[in-house]
Formats: sequence, C-alpha cells, structure tokens
Amino acid sequence: MTTDCIFCKILAGTIPAKKIYEDDDVIAFNDIKPMAKVHFLIVPKLHVEGLKACDISHQNLLGKMLLLAPKLAAEQGLVGFKTLINTGREGGQEVFHIHVHVFGGGVA
Amino acid sequence: MTTDCIFCKILAGTIPAKKIYEDDDVIAFNDIKPMAKVHFLIVPKLHVEGLKACDISHQNLLGKMLLLAPKLAAEQGLVGFKTLINTGREGGQEVFHIHVHVFGGGVA
Repeated sequence: MTTDCIFCKILAGTIPAKKIYEDDDVIAFNDIKPMAKVHFLIVPKLHVEGLKACDISHQNLLGKMLLLAPKLAAEQGLVGFKTLINTGREGGQEVFHIHVHVFGGGVA
Repeated sequence: MTTDCIFCKILAGTIPAKKIYEDDDVIAFNDIKPMAKVHFLIVPKLHVEGLKACDISHQNLLGKMLLLAPKLAAEQGLVGFKTLINTGREGGQEVFHIHVHVFGGGVA
C-alpha cells in the first residue's frame, strides 16, 4: 500500500467503490468514469505501478486477472467485452496502480 | 492448429507476417490494420479461441503474454502503450485465436 494511491485507499476502505468481486489477491469495482454500459476494473491488492514494473514474480497474478475478466463480465451480463491495460502516461494510464479495464455492452 | 485459422496459418508459415518476436510459446507480429503508429499482436502458438475459452491451464501463458508486452513495446520504441484483448464478436474480436493487441505512438 502507498498512502497517495487512490486504489490503495479503495483497498483500505477509506475511499468508497462499487465492489463487484474480492478475493485474497484482487478486487474488482465499477469505473467511476465508465466508457461503456458495463465498465469495471480488476485491481491487484499488491501495489504495482504498472505493467512495465511487472516481472516474472507477477506472471501468475497477471494471468489470474485476465482469467477473472470473462467470469466477472458474464456476471455483469456481458456476452462480449474488451480487456484493456493502459501503461504509462503516454499509454493513457491515469492511476499508477496496475489495473485491467473490462468493458462492453455499448456506449454508457 | 486449426486449418481455417489465419493465425495458425501465420504460425505454420503459409501466410506471411512481419514477425517481431518468437519463442516456444508465442509469436508477435505487426497488425495488418494498424490502429496506431506501432501496433503488433502477441499470439500464443496454442490455438485457443479466446479469453472465454481459457481456464487455469492457460494462466501462465496469459501472464507471459502480458509480461512480453512492455519488453516488445520498448523494442518498438514505445514509451507508453495499450494492451487490449477483444473477446467475442460483441467485444470486437475478429480472429478467433486469442491475441493481445499492443499499440501506441499516436494515430497510424
């Protein structure tokens, strides 16, 4: 946890979020600026800045996050969906705690 | 390998592609319809229809594909980039052999 990270604050419960899933490693909650009718984030509990900061020790976690996407997307009523990771400011990353966007269902 | 899959044909060498990386598990090659100045695909050699068809046996492979993205993106000169998986026709998937789009560097 880092004290200035909004996702760490959500994980700590000091900032609210509409949580749709949680286990020992990750949580998922709705994006506050949805780009689609359904748009949630899969976020690891471990604070890692982004995909560039990941190494072999994060391989299982990254795989787990992707495997969760279809399960949670189906629970949210999506037939098809997109999974997106933005890396670096030039890649559109806004929160520097790695997260997978999962979205679909048409324009919000 | 399935005989009607364009990515399996690229893997078999019967359809050409501008390959930028290959190892025992995956290849990466430039997208033929780039959405950005740099746009390549990371494709497993194993034919899996898409993310919905993945299970725990694919966790390592999925993690490996994501870990490869920053390495190859840097080699292609990208500082920031996006990694995207489209799942299902409703999710924009066009080739039903799982692949990670990696792109960045501005409009093509």
